[in-house]
Amino acid sequence: MIIETAELFLDTKGFCDIHDLTPEARRFVRESGLLEGQLLVHVPGSTAGVTTIEYEPGVLSDLCRALAQIAPEDIPYEHDQAWGDGNGFSHVRAALMKPSLTVPVVGGELLLGTWQQIVLLDFDNRPRHRRVIFQVMGR
Amino acid sequence: MIIETAELFLDTKGFCDIHDLTPEARRFVRESGLLEGQLLVHVPGSTAGVTTIEYEPGVLSDLCRALAQIAPEDIPYEHDQAWGDGNGFSHVRAALMKPSLTVPVVGGELLLGTWQQIVLLDFDNRPRHRRVIFQVMGR
Amino acid sequence: MIIETAELFLDTKGFCDIHDLTPEARRFVRESGLLEGQLLVHVPGSTAGVTTIEYEPGVLSDLCRALAQIAPEDIPYEHDQAWGDGNGFSHVRAALMKPSLTVPVVGGELLLGTWQQIVLLDFDNRPRHRRVIFQVMGR
Repeated sequence: MIIETAELFLDTKGFCDIHDLTPEARRFVRESGLLEGQLLVHVPGSTAGVTTIEYEPGVLSDLCRALAQIAPEDIPYEHDQAWGDGNGFSHVRAALMKPSLTVPVVGGELLLGTWQQIVLLDFDNRPRHRRVIFQVMGR
Repeated sequence: MIIETAELFLDTKGFCDIHDLTPEARRFVRESGLLEGQLLVHVPGSTAGVTTIEYEPGVLSDLCRALAQIAPEDIPYEHDQAWGDGNGFSHVRAALMKPSLTVPVVGGELLLGTWQQIVLLDFDNRPRHRRVIFQVMGR
Repeated sequence: MIIETAELFLDTKGFCDIHDLTPEARRFVRESGLLEGQLLVHVPGSTAGVTTIEYEPGVLSDLCRALAQIAPEDIPYEHDQAWGDGNGFSHVRAALMKPSLTVPVVGGELLLGTWQQIVLLDFDNRPRHRRVIFQVMGR
């Protein structure tokens, strides 16, 4: 049985800053020797999330606009009244998107569509140094 | 340790077309012999998603209406301006719903509620021939 | 290989009632002896969900308000017309949030941020006695 964990560090700008994690994810799966099983991608923290999307600037902007309608930056948040962080919108977006994603691996390959990339979404209201966790499990 | 992967192919109509995957998921779990562990359900592609819901026409329609408010068909998308696919709304809905779901298995049974089914949501703007991945891991 | 499953029962009030599951999740991981692998948290049922958020009353209220805009209580739902349950909004919110979440474990510890808690969200329109599933897999 193979279980391996790796960390990826990256600098983000916040405010719905989206990063393509697919090349690093593919490299990690290949180097792990995993043939059949799963890759878990996870971001510790309460103001970021992980999903898949076509990594194309237009649609990234479209996704950020939809999330900005669900949790706008310019409305009052109880979180901000209590803590003064000013990032209530970041927490709400992150809770909706959730911090982890599992993708199956078969024949040593991530089962992603051609136009489907694994992405980190940073919703915070300031630059962050983010730690992303990759973990494979299987054989 | 048991790891097994299967593919399910199905034809979809797009525009929030929702299919119940539970019978096939149950059959796959049973045939795999898995007693304790997890079923991963995953759809490759950037215009579809997987979740659970009560598979009842009224509430499926209610879910689609909510997603249509978040990402309406009839507003401009930067994705469409760049690529002319006309399915910017599909990508946004799919990124929000995410392509995979993990359900625990105990005693050989998926731990789902009585009114809880595993569903594929196809958000594309045209019919598709979809591949869904089932993968069990455990013992 | 370690696979262990546990149940947690808790009473909820519905209407976006959010419970912190982190202490019980941590205890279960520790008692399982898992050093490297994953914790799956799952709620059977179609009117509840699982995610992470900072467990602070202000931001919990902010999240519930955002979900109430996506699926308000006071609009008609086809589900309610068909079934008369009056909880169409609960089903829509639960399908959007999804019932499960996977968090990696390394060195025996859940990889969560300092301000990141694992929570159950109960969206039903009445008090419920909920069963939450914890499952560890790894070594």
